[in-house]
Amino acid sequence: MRVVIEGEVRDLRTIWREGQLVKLIDQRKLPHRLEIAVMRDHRETAQAIKDMVLRGAGAIGVAAAYGMAQAALEARHLPLKDFMAYMEEAAQRIRATRPTAVNLFHAVERCLRAAGEGGVEERVRRIVEEADRIAEEDLRASKLIGEYGAQLIPDGARILTHCNAGALAFIDYGTALSPIRYAHRMGKRIFVYVDETRPRCQGARLTAWELEMEGIPYAVIADNAAGYYMRRGEIDLVIVGADRIAANGDVANKIGTYERAVVAKENGIPFYVAAPKMTFDLKCPSGDEIEIEERSPEEVITAWGVDEEGNPTRVYIAKRGTPAKNPAFDVTPAKYITAFITERGILRPPYEESIRRAFG
Amino acid sequence: MRVVIEGEVRDLRTIWREGQLVKLIDQRKLPHRLEIAVMRDHRETAQAIKDMVLRGAGAIGVAAAYGMAQAALEARHLPLKDFMAYMEEAAQRIRATRPTAVNLFHAVERCLRAAGEGGVEERVRRIVEEADRIAEEDLRASKLIGEYGAQLIPDGARILTHCNAGALAFIDYGTALSPIRYAHRMGKRIFVYVDETRPRCQGARLTAWELEMEGIPYAVIADNAAGYYMRRGEIDLVIVGADRIAANGDVANKIGTYERAVVAKENGIPFYVAAPKMTFDLKCPSGDEIEIEERSPEEVITAWGVDEEGNPTRVYIAKRGTPAKNPAFDVTPAKYITAFITERGILRPPYEESIRRAFG
Repeated sequence: MRVVIEGEVRDLRTIWREGQLVKLIDQRKLPHRLEIAVMRDHRETAQAIKDMVLRGAGAIGVAAAYGMAQAALEARHLPLKDFMAYMEEAAQRIRATRPTAVNLFHAVERCLRAAGEGGVEERVRRIVEEADRIAEEDLRASKLIGEYGAQLIPDGARILTHCNAGALAFIDYGTALSPIRYAHRMGKRIFVYVDETRPRCQGARLTAWELEMEGIPYAVIADNAAGYYMRRGEIDLVIVGADRIAANGDVANKIGTYERAVVAKENGIPFYVAAPKMTFDLKCPSGDEIEIEERSPEEVITAWGVDEEGNPTRVYIAKRGTPAKNPAFDVTPAKYITAFITERGILRPPYEESIRRAFG
Repeated sequence: MRVVIEGEVRDLRTIWREGQLVKLIDQRKLPHRLEIAVMRDHRETAQAIKDMVLRGAGAIGVAAAYGMAQAALEARHLPLKDFMAYMEEAAQRIRATRPTAVNLFHAVERCLRAAGEGGVEERVRRIVEEADRIAEEDLRASKLIGEYGAQLIPDGARILTHCNAGALAFIDYGTALSPIRYAHRMGKRIFVYVDETRPRCQGARLTAWELEMEGIPYAVIADNAAGYYMRRGEIDLVIVGADRIAANGDVANKIGTYERAVVAKENGIPFYVAAPKMTFDLKCPSGDEIEIEERSPEEVITAWGVDEEGNPTRVYIAKRGTPAKNPAFDVTPAKYITAFITERGILRPPYEESIRRAFG
């Protein structure tokens, strides 16, 4: 992604590997400060996943893969048996960081399986290659989503997005933000309405920062204001990401997605969901089977940010101890979704068929 | 309204008059502290309106009326000509505090008109009586709205509300919260979902506090989560207030109301708007004619509250200077509204007719 550091334009990934080092953008500091965190071994990488130094399905998967590569490199001088024990222990450590992140488990399994037979040196090489392959696949999917999705964005389009399905949630480009980046780089004049996305404000914090860095015109709005702009005809299309997509096209995504989809349909506005293969869960028949995580009520009655002096600060917007409920995701039924933007192209209804044809 | 101060239950109004003193709940301190502010003359009352020590159409109207009563009492020893000049000056001062608050203008005009003919003493008496009458009318309308509205709330109902159309926005009871209070006091078991109502969080701050004081079970939710609970069948009805209602039943209310109304309709959930006569603007033919105030973008990129030590603090949730848009209200077309709850009873569609019959 394009970032500007002290006036100098650079092209950064969310996470990358330099030999035995893993480097990543510390997302807890964004948008107030851009800091690169350096993880010297797989333990530090695991800790970074746990501490949410990075978040987002794709980024977490790549971090797990790189952690496995680090572990392999750390253990490369051990005898085979000890090497394999070391790898198992590392896998266990990484799996324990975010027990609900499907991508993380996939990445760890792929690296373990890739080790294959033969001597330690050979196995190390194959694990590291597999980790790099996982990263490249993530990047390639995001790019293809951008290319396909940009075709759906007309010149002059005013686009609404929710949460952060951006470069920061993957290793680069993102899903919802990838078509927006491509359209902008093709010279289309676009404007992005960014839902702040309470309670964690990933829109106001992360999406706004990515668009600012990319030089794409945008404005943050209260989640409450999205419908207002839709009804006034000031939003031409909606693009969001997804956390999990069922075989019938029902979508679990950040809380608030469902409301936006209903109001978009009511106003005849196309509603697109951008997501790579890994997000489609063909074993899940419909959204009814998706369990919704309930997060801490503290998130709802507080807001995080920096104070006037730039110090990280949390404020209670309600009285301390106020009862609150905090579902992290909601399910948007397939009937509200105009199309899926994937690395295999644009999927249209009926989704049972188009999803199975693309990923079955 | 019922408030609990150090374990002791009291019955307070938002604002009241004690001779020449006007006392009111300082809403800027809520919900963290309950403080009664004392306004010794009409200048202080005008300043309180300007500084938003209180807000809400009804409360502002009553404050303006009481300010006029204070001015009359202050000037009661002046010769007639000087008395009238003093009253005109006071009226001007009060009008200038919130130039868009229709209620404030009405209250000032009514008090000036009430002065009538005759000597100063007589005029003072009539102005003070008119101010008290304005307050009593506000109270009576809120109570009737509560009585009528409570009939629409079944035992066991789970209710969604947005913003604060509570006692604090009027002199007591409120509009949206009045039927909820009545239903609760009648012994109905109810539960209230409170939209936090970004960007100014009147739901999380004020509505939550009123419900807490009243002992009504509730939970604050992110505005984004309202649709989630509606789709799951966990909300049985929605009640909101209104800032302005057109002759055809279109409603201008706090930003986010429109989205809730669309999603309620989509899920077959009744959507009620509670409002007194003064909110119906029969000269305004439809919502298209209502101009929407655009407030400071700072409100969207910041959040107000108290820090861990209880000190009032503002945090930037987005990077300072992030572009934002901040429409304060939206318009909900009449077709999404199941009924209006007014002091003249429940108004059903077609609204052109039922509104004219009630208030024309």
